[in-house]
Amino acid sequence: MSLTDRIRPESDTDRDTAPLHADEVFGAHEGGKLGTGLTAPLADARDLAIAYTPGVADVSRAIAADPALAARYTWSHRLVAVVSDGTAVLGLGDIGPRAALPVMEGKSALFKSFAGLDSIPLVLDTTDVDEIVETLVRLRPTFGAVNLEDVAAPRCFELERRLIDELDCPVMHDDQHGTAIVLLAALRGAAAVQGRPLSGLRVVVSGAGASGVACSRILLSAGVSDVVVLDSRGVISEARGGEKAALAAETNPRGVTGGLPEAIDGADVFVGLSGARVEPSLLSTMAPDSVVFALSNPDPEVHPEDAARYAGIVATGRSDFPNQINNVLAFPGVFRGALDAGARRITERMKLAAADAIARVAADDLSADRIVPGPFDPRVAPAVAAAVADAARGERDTPSI
Amino acid sequence: MSLTDRIRPESDTDRDTAPLHADEVFGAHEGGKLGTGLTAPLADARDLAIAYTPGVADVSRAIAADPALAARYTWSHRLVAVVSDGTAVLGLGDIGPRAALPVMEGKSALFKSFAGLDSIPLVLDTTDVDEIVETLVRLRPTFGAVNLEDVAAPRCFELERRLIDELDCPVMHDDQHGTAIVLLAALRGAAAVQGRPLSGLRVVVSGAGASGVACSRILLSAGVSDVVVLDSRGVISEARGGEKAALAAETNPRGVTGGLPEAIDGADVFVGLSGARVEPSLLSTMAPDSVVFALSNPDPEVHPEDAARYAGIVATGRSDFPNQINNVLAFPGVFRGALDAGARRITERMKLAAADAIARVAADDLSADRIVPGPFDPRVAPAVAAAVADAARGERDTPSI
Repeated sequence: MSLTDRIRPESDTDRDTAPLHADEVFGAHEGGKLGTGLTAPLADARDLAIAYTPGVADVSRAIAADPALAARYTWSHRLVAVVSDGTAVLGLGDIGPRAALPVMEGKSALFKSFAGLDSIPLVLDTTDVDEIVETLVRLRPTFGAVNLEDVAAPRCFELERRLIDELDCPVMHDDQHGTAIVLLAALRGAAAVQGRPLSGLRVVVSGAGASGVACSRILLSAGVSDVVVLDSRGVISEARGGEKAALAAETNPRGVTGGLPEAIDGADVFVGLSGARVEPSLLSTMAPDSVVFALSNPDPEVHPEDAARYAGIVATGRSDFPNQINNVLAFPGVFRGALDAGARRITERMKLAAADAIARVAADDLSADRIVPGPFDPRVAPAVAAAVADAARGERDTPSI
Repeated sequence: MSLTDRIRPESDTDRDTAPLHADEVFGAHEGGKLGTGLTAPLADARDLAIAYTPGVADVSRAIAADPALAARYTWSHRLVAVVSDGTAVLGLGDIGPRAALPVMEGKSALFKSFAGLDSIPLVLDTTDVDEIVETLVRLRPTFGAVNLEDVAAPRCFELERRLIDELDCPVMHDDQHGTAIVLLAALRGAAAVQGRPLSGLRVVVSGAGASGVACSRILLSAGVSDVVVLDSRGVISEARGGEKAALAAETNPRGVTGGLPEAIDGADVFVGLSGARVEPSLLSTMAPDSVVFALSNPDPEVHPEDAARYAGIVATGRSDFPNQINNVLAFPGVFRGALDAGARRITERMKLAAADAIARVAADDLSADRIVPGPFDPRVAPAVAAAVADAARGERDTPSI
């Protein structure tokens, strides 16, 4: 039973589907969505003497003697910095750091609500990778982890790589890996419903931006050997530059060329991550019992009802259709698990463990219309956190992948 | 009646004076002293749709069209960044940003408790002024004001000046100006008890670091014409470099030379801000009804009971003696007032207004043992905030001073 079911009477399901009104939305954002609070009251002179001077001097002195104690006596070890330069905000594009801040506050609110993690938005008035890295390196003692958010591709790949190299704490670009983790969990659910192994599936990924690259990579890590990736110019090849060339080298084992019609012919799974429209009839060329994930928001690549005429299982990013692929299923538990375990990195193994944990929660009550848990299922974040922490601890004794 | 009086039974005054135990202090800091919270719950899919996608997109779009709306629809306009490089933490010196963090968390907690302002510590792993300025300029869309804290002199003077120039928001180094504001308020209280005008007082300031410079300057701004400043080498002169040369040019109208004995002879007011010990008998050379502020913590320049043998009024920084000069009387209300008024700077006029407001609260119940309000007096922060906001609004129509 999901949290939503528990706390809301059945008759309130209308609430979810009623249209949002502007005054309701803007009213809810008035003054911002975040606040800071104290873990203990400051009500009298003794409280002040303990929390501030002179008491705090002993704590500072102890950390000066042993910096590792900062993790114990400050909030930094459970503090996630939600970092954005505002260059790829939702579907709105490069709207800048000020306009990105409401989204980052929302993300921080989700960290708190779903995983009990404190979180602060850090929005940056620069889009220069060197400058962003330098800024976060200087601020390193302030936080315990970095959730990169809404940074445009291809800059996001270099930025994440550089931050992972230069910060000794968990760093994850959620638009890449949060999406990838939930996609893999959903595909595990779909394969389980259909009783076939993941590794044998032929998968087409439409979109080679942040999420397209990360989703393709996690599928390869999970053992899917036949992945074909397209961007607006068709199936990507090694002739492309940067990230796409690298990804092309690892994918497309049958050497497919051309566009979506060539790629989708006989495929088992279509993953839409680009917003590029898909003609529903094209889905008829897929293999039987096909799986269609049309994940662009708010407009899926193909309407789920149209897709259902051809496909065995359909998922979207939307809450008003079955099988919502929502990365809130992943990132709160991933960061919580990494911080709980004192991990220095979020590795591929930890991401795979997160996807497995989500899939295991769904396995209790699996159907073609329920291949992933609902976003408010209270079992998910603790299960993901535990699996990620276990993977992180296991990682210490084995080489990272 | 102070907040302390209101919320605590009289019999609990023992609580304030009982010694602090290490396990009590470290226990209170376990896990840090701050947390983030949501201004509205995220309990169901509709809450999520309003606070995050798709609802937040309308808010982001509105800010992209009119950046001024960020002040209305994000938390930034009421968020104070407490910034430190950890180079002059309490009396502990240069212990670094990690060890400084518990102090900054405490400061953020005070902002919340005393003025209802949200606040986040930003501790920096660099002591380079250019790099600190650059970092905060890049982070500018993140916060609404900067409280500089525990940055060593003389670097703190340049850093504050540069930040004021380069950030279009209130910036104040509290170790300088918070102390100066409360000192001025206390001196107003002392002068009122003794029925003499502030402007006629001869004042000696021992210490030419962050607080010594700022205290001297605010006394000059308030009309005290005879201020003599000393550091460890004696009365400062224009032959010194940097900030001290500039201050020497504005002070010491009688051209006093030498050390403390020469400076204090015939003085009305001694202000100790350096920790340098003062022989009690030296106070006998001051003018009658002298005022002694021995503000170093935890060891005042002269023990208040010794000082009281010679002086008419004695104040310290300690909570266990009368007349505590505690900058918690100033900074919460100063920042609250500046942010409430949408001020871009914290000007000298706003600081003077803050000191006057504190002095007015004390005026209701003034005595030689009560020249300033107690730190928990609930009237202080609102009075300071209102006075600072008024001054900020007035400033817009008149040249700044």
